[in-house]
Amino acid sequence: MATEKTLDDLFLDTLKDIYYAERQIVKTLPKMAKAATSPELRAGFEQHHTETEGHIERLEQIFELMGKTPRGKTCDAILGIIEEGKSIMEDFKGSVALDAGLVSAGQAVEHYEIARYGTLKSWATQLGMKEAAALLDATLKEELATDKKLSQVAITNVNQKAA
Amino acid sequence: MATEKTLDDLFLDTLKDIYYAERQIVKTLPKMAKAATSPELRAGFEQHHTETEGHIERLEQIFELMGKTPRGKTCDAILGIIEEGKSIMEDFKGSVALDAGLVSAGQAVEHYEIARYGTLKSWATQLGMKEAAALLDATLKEELATDKKLSQVAITNVNQKAA
Repeated sequence: MATEKTLDDLFLDTLKDIYYAERQIVKTLPKMAKAATSPELRAGFEQHHTETEGHIERLEQIFELMGKTPRGKTCDAILGIIEEGKSIMEDFKGSVALDAGLVSAGQAVEHYEIARYGTLKSWATQLGMKEAAALLDATLKEELATDKKLSQVAITNVNQKAA
Repeated sequence: MATEKTLDDLFLDTLKDIYYAERQIVKTLPKMAKAATSPELRAGFEQHHTETEGHIERLEQIFELMGKTPRGKTCDAILGIIEEGKSIMEDFKGSVALDAGLVSAGQAVEHYEIARYGTLKSWATQLGMKEAAALLDATLKEELATDKKLSQVAITNVNQKAA
């Protein structure tokens, strides 16, 4: 019965959502790095690719803590965000504005993750899952740092060349 | 030719993207307000609905400043984000965790907008579009405030009841 569902169910559903999303992101970042013309931007995507592998491992640890097998659940949001990023890569290929478009796509991905990890951390805390909350917080901090770094690369390396 | 595209084109494309997104959001917020059981959460969605109408008007002002007719461009990202919100509303209908799910869905929407308005403001500044940058900044500040308010409502009103 629907009325029996609680925050535990919502937490697990959302964990599966972001697990699916991270596994899409880890496949997409190398394509974004390859497309980038600014060496700083390429290095940023490559570094975040390595971090994302760590985020997937942390999520798998949380599934384990809950006694569950790690399993993703199709996340329409990340599919839509990645689809938009692909369109930008195609539409602006070879143009001076390509890198600016890649930053924009990257920040849309980051903000989706920031929203989800913020929510999951808050729920883990409410549910008394201290270890999970710490793992989620560690990833959240890296997503926030990546978003900030993308803003900096845009201002110092990318936007001026694109204008 | 693709090589002739510049930041102006990317700005206009992204303006169309968020214009489409805002018009989807303005249709979705009343459904989220109606579904919410917490009066604080319902009031929050209702207030943000009014703000969103203002965001659409600001975007229309920017199109006008550019001498363009306001026009949306299908935004797969917001469609995916809204689709996930709908699934949560259906899956958790009648459960104690429904409001927590609504907050989560609302914050995913807010973060998409924060990413897009942050990018557009940065590009408008680069392009010397001062008036547009100010309009985008005004909306960005309201999106950030809404996201913060949703976090507060979750902590004070929603998550404990859901657990």
